[in-house]
Amino acid sequence: MPGHFADDLTAAIIDKHAPVCVGIDPSYDRLPEPLKQKFGDDQVGALREFCTEVIRAVAPIAPAIKPQIAYFEVHHGPGVELYFDTIALARQAGLMIIGDIKRSDIGSTAQAYARGHVSGKNCPDAVTVNGYLGSDGLAPFIDEGAPDGRGIFILVRTSNPSGAVIQDFADASGKKLYQHMADQVAALGQGSVGSSGYSRVGAVVGATYPDEARQLREMMPEQIFLVPGYGAQGATAADCAASFKPDGTGAIVNASRSIIYAYDKNPDADWRQAIRQAAQAFATDLAGAVF
Amino acid sequence: MPGHFADDLTAAIIDKHAPVCVGIDPSYDRLPEPLKQKFGDDQVGALREFCTEVIRAVAPIAPAIKPQIAYFEVHHGPGVELYFDTIALARQAGLMIIGDIKRSDIGSTAQAYARGHVSGKNCPDAVTVNGYLGSDGLAPFIDEGAPDGRGIFILVRTSNPSGAVIQDFADASGKKLYQHMADQVAALGQGSVGSSGYSRVGAVVGATYPDEARQLREMMPEQIFLVPGYGAQGATAADCAASFKPDGTGAIVNASRSIIYAYDKNPDADWRQAIRQAAQAFATDLAGAVF
Repeated sequence: MPGHFADDLTAAIIDKHAPVCVGIDPSYDRLPEPLKQKFGDDQVGALREFCTEVIRAVAPIAPAIKPQIAYFEVHHGPGVELYFDTIALARQAGLMIIGDIKRSDIGSTAQAYARGHVSGKNCPDAVTVNGYLGSDGLAPFIDEGAPDGRGIFILVRTSNPSGAVIQDFADASGKKLYQHMADQVAALGQGSVGSSGYSRVGAVVGATYPDEARQLREMMPEQIFLVPGYGAQGATAADCAASFKPDGTGAIVNASRSIIYAYDKNPDADWRQAIRQAAQAFATDLAGAVF
Repeated sequence: MPGHFADDLTAAIIDKHAPVCVGIDPSYDRLPEPLKQKFGDDQVGALREFCTEVIRAVAPIAPAIKPQIAYFEVHHGPGVELYFDTIALARQAGLMIIGDIKRSDIGSTAQAYARGHVSGKNCPDAVTVNGYLGSDGLAPFIDEGAPDGRGIFILVRTSNPSGAVIQDFADASGKKLYQHMADQVAALGQGSVGSSGYSRVGAVVGATYPDEARQLREMMPEQIFLVPGYGAQGATAADCAASFKPDGTGAIVNASRSIIYAYDKNPDADWRQAIRQAAQAFATDLAGAVF
């Protein structure tokens, strides 16, 4: 039975009472020492066990994970295999998966990306994409994802300091580029709205600018927002709440390093338990601010 | 001895009297029938032989190839392995390699991409990147590439129709986003200029807008332009010439499908020979317009 990404994610968030996503950004250098020792030179093997344990720890708590493909790609072919295996494992564990790939290209090349990342074997439920090349680069992802109801999140407003140099570029009326991008995203998503009232076409909106998030929430009523910036990047749960509608739907907040490396702050604890506790604290914090 | 991408590419273009790059976008469906038959279900095996033969055919003619990673990534881990193996093979054949990856991310994630694609084993001499996230997403590529003198090409003006919806967004003075991006690229590249007068930080400027290319040539005097749009996308050699300086330096024109699938137009010829002839005609056409 074909799903619909926005409907399924909205239901999963309500089900777990947790509007959160755990980002899996596994850097070999930061893995727990016991894991590094166990696997010796087999870096990908150590990463595999780490990803497996992170999924096990967070599956009862969070509705979704967001593997960041860059940390897999640095290990070339075997790393990319692990990325897709991690997706398969997360799906078995009942998690939804947002592949953080931020791809961008046009025409037949965008279609090749979409076939590899949206409609192929072990593909995630949604991916992130970059809209600088316009709708030519986005439509193939929407179209390829249609049979399985898969989603995309288009970068609108990123959470990093220098993003503003590009994204705040403003026209004569004062409209900024990220707002112009938001208009494009809202238009692109109109044909793909599910029973939840949300589209398979969502938006990435950084939590570090809550006033802008409130405005974007008005401009894109049918978009689910993927919200980075909580934790390591400094945004609070209250900042993140600006991306949600009053009924508590419409967004999912991501935290990566502050969860999966939680053992850094408590080196004497079991690292799996530290991850689980951090995920629980993250979910509780956000649920309190949003629901 | 560390090289410098812009210096080395400029020398290689002059040496072969060919300001051209052959894009390797290998789609299994479009491979020559004899290859498909030889390899049966082993699609990656067929692609491997195809890439090997393309490199063999164009190495005496073109100074560089541009593998498009999307067509490799669609085959997941084994495809990505083939991408890096293809780079290694092209390097052995004396070619320079531009990895068309158009990655975009920030901070430690951009650094992971850079380590995988710029400074790692079998990495290309330069990669394409997307600047929507600002300098946070670009600096890691420049920094990681420094020890080996590797380059990046930042998307400024893409050759596709809908790119203009985003890239033509204009401020009160009439300056367009792609011109604003050009300013950022010129500034970012200042610290990385080689003896050729060109920076390791280049720009992607589509050939389908020659008037704009002339203007961008003035705005980015230290950037090498990677110019897509010739052939399949409709731009002529004269259109492409707008991206070069009067002395014939400062740009490299890419053609992909019109070269590597040249046998489609002449199904009775040997497919390797059709590719070689198309590459030669491409190089001769551009050299005539530029030198």
